[in-house]
Amino acid sequence: MYSDEIETFLKSKGIKTGDRIRVEYSGVTIEGDLMPKTEAGRHDTIIVKLKSGYNVGIAFGNARITKMNGQAVEPGSSPKSKVKQDAKLPKISLIYTGGTIGNKIDYRTGGVYPLLKPEELLHEIPELSKIANITVKSPFSMASEDLSYAEWQKIAHEVASEINSGARGVVVTIGTDTMHYVSAALSFMLQDLNAPVVLTGAQRSSDRGSSDAFMNLICAAQLAAKSDIAEVGICMHRSSSDKECQFMRGTKVRKMHSSRRDAFRPINDSAIAFVTSDGKIDYNGHYKKIGKGKTTVKAGFENNVALIKVHPNSTPGIIDFYVDMGYKGIILEGTGLGHTPVGPSNKKGSWIPQIGGAIKKGVVIGMTTQTLYGRVNANVYTNLRKVSELGVVYCEDMLPETAYVKLGWLLGNYDAKKAKELLNRNIVGEINERIGYDEFLV
Amino acid sequence: MYSDEIETFLKSKGIKTGDRIRVEYSGVTIEGDLMPKTEAGRHDTIIVKLKSGYNVGIAFGNARITKMNGQAVEPGSSPKSKVKQDAKLPKISLIYTGGTIGNKIDYRTGGVYPLLKPEELLHEIPELSKIANITVKSPFSMASEDLSYAEWQKIAHEVASEINSGARGVVVTIGTDTMHYVSAALSFMLQDLNAPVVLTGAQRSSDRGSSDAFMNLICAAQLAAKSDIAEVGICMHRSSSDKECQFMRGTKVRKMHSSRRDAFRPINDSAIAFVTSDGKIDYNGHYKKIGKGKTTVKAGFENNVALIKVHPNSTPGIIDFYVDMGYKGIILEGTGLGHTPVGPSNKKGSWIPQIGGAIKKGVVIGMTTQTLYGRVNANVYTNLRKVSELGVVYCEDMLPETAYVKLGWLLGNYDAKKAKELLNRNIVGEINERIGYDEFLV
Repeated sequence: MYSDEIETFLKSKGIKTGDRIRVEYSGVTIEGDLMPKTEAGRHDTIIVKLKSGYNVGIAFGNARITKMNGQAVEPGSSPKSKVKQDAKLPKISLIYTGGTIGNKIDYRTGGVYPLLKPEELLHEIPELSKIANITVKSPFSMASEDLSYAEWQKIAHEVASEINSGARGVVVTIGTDTMHYVSAALSFMLQDLNAPVVLTGAQRSSDRGSSDAFMNLICAAQLAAKSDIAEVGICMHRSSSDKECQFMRGTKVRKMHSSRRDAFRPINDSAIAFVTSDGKIDYNGHYKKIGKGKTTVKAGFENNVALIKVHPNSTPGIIDFYVDMGYKGIILEGTGLGHTPVGPSNKKGSWIPQIGGAIKKGVVIGMTTQTLYGRVNANVYTNLRKVSELGVVYCEDMLPETAYVKLGWLLGNYDAKKAKELLNRNIVGEINERIGYDEFLV
Repeated sequence: MYSDEIETFLKSKGIKTGDRIRVEYSGVTIEGDLMPKTEAGRHDTIIVKLKSGYNVGIAFGNARITKMNGQAVEPGSSPKSKVKQDAKLPKISLIYTGGTIGNKIDYRTGGVYPLLKPEELLHEIPELSKIANITVKSPFSMASEDLSYAEWQKIAHEVASEINSGARGVVVTIGTDTMHYVSAALSFMLQDLNAPVVLTGAQRSSDRGSSDAFMNLICAAQLAAKSDIAEVGICMHRSSSDKECQFMRGTKVRKMHSSRRDAFRPINDSAIAFVTSDGKIDYNGHYKKIGKGKTTVKAGFENNVALIKVHPNSTPGIIDFYVDMGYKGIILEGTGLGHTPVGPSNKKGSWIPQIGGAIKKGVVIGMTTQTLYGRVNANVYTNLRKVSELGVVYCEDMLPETAYVKLGWLLGNYDAKKAKELLNRNIVGEINERIGYDEFLV
């Protein structure tokens, strides 16, 4: 229940939960459906569900609330003028797909709601227009946990189209939770890539004092406008200070913290470059340089591929589950050097028969490690050889997430035999032949 | 095929693949079954499968090979005399359960084989007998990937029995791949623990120059003999140098590298103590101290609990799969702050109906994050609230592996209602209320 004051007011206006209402507060007008108070919500704050699906909370005392009919519209202030661009600056494209970087927080509830238009980012961050001549595109706006390969494909096509239309670099803003899956997908989908493709986002929404949104976007724009890197990567804070960002290879990077600004880390690899807000780029590792030719897209993706984390007493029946559903590929996240339970001690039985059965049916199975750092190696212990001799592909030092994306991409573009052959062959830097001593926990 | 020389020899002696043979080389005699050459194996090395299941390779040129009948026996040299113990030193117990720490490597093939007897560790490391008066026990000897909760229970009972028989501390040697699952299990199973329980192992077998076995075991013995910590933890190399080891809380530690000596790291926590080979203990964090009373065991464990890693386009059908098999608990390893796909964009559908259905049937579902570092938080985004409002327990900063073990333990000892209630309540330090700024990537 809301507070007595709110309940009395709503009753007097004939407003019930689920009704479409208009709320005016602090010069902003929003429209949406009145939601019931949540258990954790404050009694003196009303909750409105926007058309976008996001909930926003508004302090009752400051708001003017009216019942309305018809469609709710997106929140936001009045349309702003177009940002002035400098035609002499390098031409880059900004592809906006949603995520925290485009969100604003509601301080009363801690909830967040999205910006009205992607172009608002240019208004919010005037520095951007001094770095590059920016074209903004937005194929969709979604939370990253809901992105599937269809969205990855859309982004790949949009990126290639922008590059082939003259953009010397592309920035893609995206929700951070699955950003490293997306960066891996784009790494494989974009063929003969001839421009920096810089994914970025924010861990804190852009109207918070501690937001990383501005610096991440500015540094990403600097890389897109100035660097000679022809790879897909992620540009996020190097440390939790605002000193600089780092650009990490799209297949060798992972979100390693749920909330820190420096959550993204290179795994079994070094950052490709460090970059400051004012455009100083410090190249740190080997990378593919911009050459000539057209960037094309090979965007096939197999719908039926799974990533399974193995654990003590885990059931090998999970393999049958996927095989029975017609899955064509499975990545295992094994323990240590790439183990599954193989002994009779596992109450759920050895994984050997199910893995062997699936492979006989033509399913491609790859092995990675849940340690994340380091590589798998089938040659050290007998138990490992038992698994590898069934035909499981040991994926070197590839991240489980990258291996999952790679296998989906391979099976979407090649037959199973070729996919199996290519799975542990290095295509875009996803395998590091010799991991450096310092490439651990950086 | 082996080399012509070997094939000719085997033929002349009437030895075929699978035959029981005796091989004498370098003063060692082993017995086992002749194996076919593996694809990767050397042509001039014969492979013998020991009774233990381990393969060993022997350079043909140096070996005397004879065909035999009857049972093969374990490899090893002649029995050694009992190690002399000093009764005035603190009394500790060493529980040996297998793993690399008790293996020797065969330099010709890179394969490993186990020591004949756990007591050999005392012979191999004479320093141990100067630290403590050591009783060696070995309830079983297994590779850690094959340990299931039955073995965790055996270890828990063995540890409690040793403590209650007068051991002031216990060292448990164990394979490293699932050591952090075991340390979590022992943390919950041992009640009113009144002694240091120090798990250790090795990333490199004990006869390699780079082995960490000696130092890990010596430092673990120092902690068991001298520290006042009454917790279960893992003692392994702090860095890849041999300067010191670190003792990490059993529920807040994880194997983060497949091969490095410093693979085990505290997650969302600090090491409890640093320890050197000569017994200098530097206490670093808060911990439970040795008190009075008897250590008891609450070792119940539910067989039907799963850990599921969520990924883009992952199928919610996996929930039904486990529910249909009668599973009572599921830990999800979500993205970011604890997400599953909830939107219609996921080709496999939203996870909401399946999660909701499982919870209605009484399955306890917990949420952790695949970032490993940081905590889940159901209050930030609408998509998170959608999941938490179904009754999913958000497990704070608990590691996915620890949450899996905890849920299995809870459901093995309490009813579902109580288990759900306790899942995100701190019991033995598995939840860190306030993660320190420096507790990331250390």
